[in-house]
Amino acid sequence: MSHVEFRTSQDRYRHWRLDIDGPVATLVMDVDERGGLVPGYELKLNSYDLGVDIELYDAVQRLRFEHPEVTAVVVTSGKDKIFCAGANIRMLAAAEHSWKVNFCKFTNETRNGIEDATDNSGQTYLAALNGTASGGGYELALACDKILLIDDRSSVVSLPELPLLGVLPGTGGLTRVTDKRHVRRDRADYFATKSEGIGGKKAVQWKLVDEVVPRVRWQEVIAERGRGYAESASRLPGGPAVQLTPLDKERTSSWEITYPHVTAAIDRGRAVAEITVTGPSLDAPDSMDGVYALGAAFWSLAVARELDDLILDLRTNETEIGTWVFKTEGDPAQVLAYDELLLANYDSDWLAREIVLYWKRTLKRLDVTARSLIALVEPGSCFAGSLLELALAADRSYMLFGVFEDVDPDATPATITVGPANLGPLPMGNGLTRLRTRFLGDPDALAAAEKAAGEALDAEDAERLGLVTFAPDDIDWADEVRIAVEERASFSPDALTGLEANNRFAGPETMETKIFGRLTAWQNWIFYRPNASGPDGALRAYGTGKRAGFDRKRV
Amino acid sequence: MSHVEFRTSQDRYRHWRLDIDGPVATLVMDVDERGGLVPGYELKLNSYDLGVDIELYDAVQRLRFEHPEVTAVVVTSGKDKIFCAGANIRMLAAAEHSWKVNFCKFTNETRNGIEDATDNSGQTYLAALNGTASGGGYELALACDKILLIDDRSSVVSLPELPLLGVLPGTGGLTRVTDKRHVRRDRADYFATKSEGIGGKKAVQWKLVDEVVPRVRWQEVIAERGRGYAESASRLPGGPAVQLTPLDKERTSSWEITYPHVTAAIDRGRAVAEITVTGPSLDAPDSMDGVYALGAAFWSLAVARELDDLILDLRTNETEIGTWVFKTEGDPAQVLAYDELLLANYDSDWLAREIVLYWKRTLKRLDVTARSLIALVEPGSCFAGSLLELALAADRSYMLFGVFEDVDPDATPATITVGPANLGPLPMGNGLTRLRTRFLGDPDALAAAEKAAGEALDAEDAERLGLVTFAPDDIDWADEVRIAVEERASFSPDALTGLEANNRFAGPETMETKIFGRLTAWQNWIFYRPNASGPDGALRAYGTGKRAGFDRKRV
Repeated sequence: MSHVEFRTSQDRYRHWRLDIDGPVATLVMDVDERGGLVPGYELKLNSYDLGVDIELYDAVQRLRFEHPEVTAVVVTSGKDKIFCAGANIRMLAAAEHSWKVNFCKFTNETRNGIEDATDNSGQTYLAALNGTASGGGYELALACDKILLIDDRSSVVSLPELPLLGVLPGTGGLTRVTDKRHVRRDRADYFATKSEGIGGKKAVQWKLVDEVVPRVRWQEVIAERGRGYAESASRLPGGPAVQLTPLDKERTSSWEITYPHVTAAIDRGRAVAEITVTGPSLDAPDSMDGVYALGAAFWSLAVARELDDLILDLRTNETEIGTWVFKTEGDPAQVLAYDELLLANYDSDWLAREIVLYWKRTLKRLDVTARSLIALVEPGSCFAGSLLELALAADRSYMLFGVFEDVDPDATPATITVGPANLGPLPMGNGLTRLRTRFLGDPDALAAAEKAAGEALDAEDAERLGLVTFAPDDIDWADEVRIAVEERASFSPDALTGLEANNRFAGPETMETKIFGRLTAWQNWIFYRPNASGPDGALRAYGTGKRAGFDRKRV
Repeated sequence: MSHVEFRTSQDRYRHWRLDIDGPVATLVMDVDERGGLVPGYELKLNSYDLGVDIELYDAVQRLRFEHPEVTAVVVTSGKDKIFCAGANIRMLAAAEHSWKVNFCKFTNETRNGIEDATDNSGQTYLAALNGTASGGGYELALACDKILLIDDRSSVVSLPELPLLGVLPGTGGLTRVTDKRHVRRDRADYFATKSEGIGGKKAVQWKLVDEVVPRVRWQEVIAERGRGYAESASRLPGGPAVQLTPLDKERTSSWEITYPHVTAAIDRGRAVAEITVTGPSLDAPDSMDGVYALGAAFWSLAVARELDDLILDLRTNETEIGTWVFKTEGDPAQVLAYDELLLANYDSDWLAREIVLYWKRTLKRLDVTARSLIALVEPGSCFAGSLLELALAADRSYMLFGVFEDVDPDATPATITVGPANLGPLPMGNGLTRLRTRFLGDPDALAAAEKAAGEALDAEDAERLGLVTFAPDDIDWADEVRIAVEERASFSPDALTGLEANNRFAGPETMETKIFGRLTAWQNWIFYRPNASGPDGALRAYGTGKRAGFDRKRV
């Protein structure tokens, strides 16, 4: 698979149009059949591949930052009689297993982002199905707050993956049908086995859509609903739009990716990427005015964008780099000051909230990333507040006790600081903060860690409070860290993925964790089995006129 | 794989001893190396296979019914220096994928049953690790309420599956470490990658065990703790022990299994088993005295045992029979009367509670069974109360509207009845009743269904209340049911397993559903991947001196 870039912008879209009409945005899916990301398939019937989804993600992000006036987003199709046929089958059939899984993950994250915009940004999404929505097309609709379906006697919604392809709807469909839309489980069973789908009144009765609208009234009703949603949604006030200017990203060699505040150094031999995040170089602005003036250059926003892009890049393009080591450099007090400014304005300013929400989503992306995450806390680092979340998201953290005597005996030993950003605004997908998840069932430890907020904690305190895993001294540091990284590279990558997916999500489960946990794990297995992907599997047989051959054993 | 029977009894155990000393039972694992269920491996170091686990399950069940005086169960080993080495690796390496998954499921269910006995039966389990407990051995300990480890400088607990075998601990270990014992996630990560395990004080500090006991004081402390737990546990009073007499089971042909109250007719061509449960033939006893007099012949207990055995038999021996169709025959009023007697005594009589708990566990077994479940409600059936749960557990139900005109035009049309058994005492693994799960997010529908309790509901009412999926009449019945069954046989068995595992568990997740959902699904995938099970995979390479060869791509 060739190198994939996730950076794009509206003027480069091939598959989507974004029309803004006051508070109502219309996002029109109009896929260019010949615009596939890689050769070998045509994107017929508004089916999508990763390239289509990258544009959708970009549009959703830009709506949040570049269109603060928008409070309702109507998602519809530019084709006649078809809303979207879902992920392209030929693409899926030809793709490697790891590609399919990574693709589904990104698509899921975008859909979760759509729900986050509806729930927390005051941008309500509305699916206007002007034709049939099947598979991933219907799953996209399910991520919207409301679903309207045209009543033209032929348009339906469907999840035909199981009967036609021998796989599951891969991007949250089953979970959202039962847990979000509350379709009864036996009806959900019937629906997911009926490739011809369900439309008309029955689709409403079964809660698969919210409303069916006769063809003659379609344009009028959609416009009306769009305005209605726009009026009822409440977005915070604040300053003008912020342009998400092109990311300043350089690939200085095959083993280094640099942005202004984030760098990744890839060591292919050791299968590790060392990711360094630099703290703010300027004092935090006095007020949100200063943030608006800086726009995309404001440190917190810039770092979120850079990390987001880097995570997506490494996930997709560097699949054999199994361990990510996180470091930070800078002044912890500065990081805390930036956090403070944003959190003080979280409830009153749309941009402050958007930047915090973007951090939340980026950290969640890390939580579901199938890579071992290790944080190294060394002198000169700034793991405080929002940046401490990187260490709390890691599978393990090592914090140097003292200093590196040979390197800089006069250095100030590293500290970490719990800040307000760690106490609520950046929850994981399970609904809990990373601190709460860490101290699940141990309220005393949680209280002690929370009580230490604001204190610069040295290695001894950080270890005692359970905020870092190990605190070796200079003598042991190099060996312990080396062994941790080498060991990781020697283990089965599959087993590590499973281990991390389990350990990271202690505690309650939510629709979101179910999608990434239960649903995705089943889908991973099903996609991998010969019944789907083997030479006679349903994915390969689809469209050939041949019947799939199944091993009938139930597992 | 040869035919497996789950029926056994204490006099036939090869691997366990059960010693009863007043209120303290000691369950001693002493595996016969040459006692493997199938040829090809030796059960060294107290490692286990399905045969060992069948005996454990039997012992746990008999403790509940045959030893009501027991309030503490000490699980220990008859070997020196080793508690249990977990599932036998050679067995796992040689076994088919479906066998491995089914084996893990049964093992999980037994461990959940141990927790159920501790939580609800007043029989508290205590793991006395007189030697190293690794992998499944430690997972067995994790299912106990407390874990004591001998401190002899060599005994440890460990989960070495990932580093040694490239798979995950397959029976709840990861989930219980974080969610039950609240081991911090980064420590859980370290622990699960460290094949040499952790013992001594660190095992206590990390919450991996509750207490370490010096070798010289071991016998004394275990005896003391056993008595202490026995005294603090409270088991309900009631009548004398009930012997679980041998099940009267006949395999009348290769396609029929019959018990006194349950029959299964297997149609290999259509890949379906028709399971018929017969209601009580006698009036319910007036009081629990009558139940004690009948013992294992008491209808509710007898049916639970028969269904339990049948589920295990079909799951293991009939893997290609992908659809189970449930029917009932009898008088709904009788079923409700039996339920009523048990529920009236649930809080005061140990046997009443045990029978209800056994129903709960048997229905949960059905919920996690990888078969399509269809209920057919016809004239003469008795889907009421506890038996209605079979229809509510089904993926779909069909209820005949009216009667079969050609068969018996004068028959009384079928009814179903919601009873007290449907309103609380038989929750699913997610902690909700099947009714609540069914009507998740629809409190009005739930209230209407609960309000109808006690009424004999005809097909029209049952469909209107959402208690059955479809209510076709005589003209459509045969076709609709035939299509449902044939369609099921035409779909990918893997995709059906995934679909059902998602649809059945709408709503909240618990440790139990996480084990069967998140953990098991990941494990399924990992087990199936070449990195574990391929010719160079870690499972195959183990013990050969060769290093496993991994595809290093992270998925």
